[in-house]
Amino acid sequence: MCVVGLGLIGGSLMRAAKAAGRAVFGYNRSVEGVEAARFDGFDATTNLDEALTRAAQSGALIVLAVPMPALAQMLRHIRATAPECPLTDVTSVKGAVLTEVDKAGLLDRFVGGHPMTGTAHSGWTAGDERLFHNTPWVVSVDDHVDPTVWAAVMQLALDCGAFVVPARSDEHDVAAATISHLPHLLAEALAATAGEVPLAFALAAGSFRDGTRVAGTAPDLVRAMCEANASQLVPVLDKALRRLVDARNQLAKHHPVAELVEAGHAARIRYDSFSRPQIVATVLGEDGWRDELAAAGRAGGVIRSALPTLDSRG
Amino acid sequence: MCVVGLGLIGGSLMRAAKAAGRAVFGYNRSVEGVEAARFDGFDATTNLDEALTRAAQSGALIVLAVPMPALAQMLRHIRATAPECPLTDVTSVKGAVLTEVDKAGLLDRFVGGHPMTGTAHSGWTAGDERLFHNTPWVVSVDDHVDPTVWAAVMQLALDCGAFVVPARSDEHDVAAATISHLPHLLAEALAATAGEVPLAFALAAGSFRDGTRVAGTAPDLVRAMCEANASQLVPVLDKALRRLVDARNQLAKHHPVAELVEAGHAARIRYDSFSRPQIVATVLGEDGWRDELAAAGRAGGVIRSALPTLDSRG
Repeated sequence: MCVVGLGLIGGSLMRAAKAAGRAVFGYNRSVEGVEAARFDGFDATTNLDEALTRAAQSGALIVLAVPMPALAQMLRHIRATAPECPLTDVTSVKGAVLTEVDKAGLLDRFVGGHPMTGTAHSGWTAGDERLFHNTPWVVSVDDHVDPTVWAAVMQLALDCGAFVVPARSDEHDVAAATISHLPHLLAEALAATAGEVPLAFALAAGSFRDGTRVAGTAPDLVRAMCEANASQLVPVLDKALRRLVDARNQLAKHHPVAELVEAGHAARIRYDSFSRPQIVATVLGEDGWRDELAAAGRAGGVIRSALPTLDSRG
Repeated sequence: MCVVGLGLIGGSLMRAAKAAGRAVFGYNRSVEGVEAARFDGFDATTNLDEALTRAAQSGALIVLAVPMPALAQMLRHIRATAPECPLTDVTSVKGAVLTEVDKAGLLDRFVGGHPMTGTAHSGWTAGDERLFHNTPWVVSVDDHVDPTVWAAVMQLALDCGAFVVPARSDEHDVAAATISHLPHLLAEALAATAGEVPLAFALAAGSFRDGTRVAGTAPDLVRAMCEANASQLVPVLDKALRRLVDARNQLAKHHPVAELVEAGHAARIRYDSFSRPQIVATVLGEDGWRDELAAAGRAGGVIRSALPTLDSRG
């Protein structure tokens, strides 16, 4: 397999795939990243053509791990040099990626992915082969996806120690807006507000520290994910704002804020006991397999060991 | 000393004070709490008169560790039975407590306190003698405070392993609204919003988990602190809402959200490197000592070992 972009996610992926015994090589734009990867014993280059030609020759799975703004250009290179390779990505917004992949004419070999993990750090050196361990990795089950490519992406996620959540790209993007992009905006607002209150940092403890942790993420990464998913994020942000404005108005009248507090607490308790039934019965490529997986994922279902394909059962 | 209320904070305080070698006894309303404390080897009773009479006879420092709604009634009992005892509290809102203490005619023996710590759990069994270890403990330096009582409260905080942040009650309440009550409301809004999006819990990872952790706190505790501090919380919440609404409008126009993201990131980075110079030069009771401590606390200063009083210096 070929990892394009060796930052936090790409670099962790390269480490995890190698640790799982897979043959893996990679490309990174910056010399520093490539040198650091090589120093750690990995097969990396700053020469994109070389990496993609090698991928084309071996039919390697190409994993796009570049930031959203670099995607369109990268897809043109792949279209030119390695158009037959199975293709996935690890970008946090799936609808926008799908549009770009479609524009590049690579849709039939593409299955989107999104490992739901990360840290506040970035770059090769921030990587960790255990970053994906026991975390959700979304694999898209859009109408176009090919079962063989899907199986390859599923296997990659499982090899990295993740469990697979099958989801449609559009549903993923609404959920990601809710549980990733919205928390980032709230954390930024909390940190920025506290930054202007004299005694605030002096008194800050656990609830502030936890509530602002992701504000430590590099601003360009936060902007990239929020801005790329703006059309899904705005309605979700509006829902949160409506709850907060209602609470604000209650507080201003010295009324109870029971509605917000009780709804929030109940949801968090439900989250704590959220169970993840294992998906075992679906055969990839059978009639209706995509809808079946999307429904199972919606209900919390996850894939922890490889599902069969029609071929493998053949 | 006498701890009134043996929940998470009162119970942890009792453990920490005993571990530091202090004589400590306590009162709790519920039989369960008292039995659990006794089982763990502590001197506790459900008889309030007995506890307060004992405090009055020994001139014990009384620590109010009851929820805000129980405070007024408790202060009347103290006024009747132990009006000469030095008095402090561990409540998260200092202005409202000050008003109640003043109403009860106990202001001259009172120095407010607020240990800035906690967990999402409550009750005696949730207590931990190390709960205060290396955390800020605000001790109020309002105009009325007596240096001897102040020294006693400072010593208690230090004995529990905390460091003391001196602050005026009104400034404390604005800061607490910002770094404690606001994060609670944001966490509730995030959890409640996600609770209504089908795939959200299935995809939730670190940023959602951290961002909603404090939504696990018992709703009545969250309501009590937010509602008691409503007049300070509303303007702070308005500031956060203004930032979020601006970001929302930028996103809706597909404009960058650089302003929010960069301000939040910069503030969080400043918080990470926030230093706490030690306050060593102030003598409690000397001219202007209260203003001196308030200014030092505002600038991040903390007390890590007991400051002298005029008396102790002879």
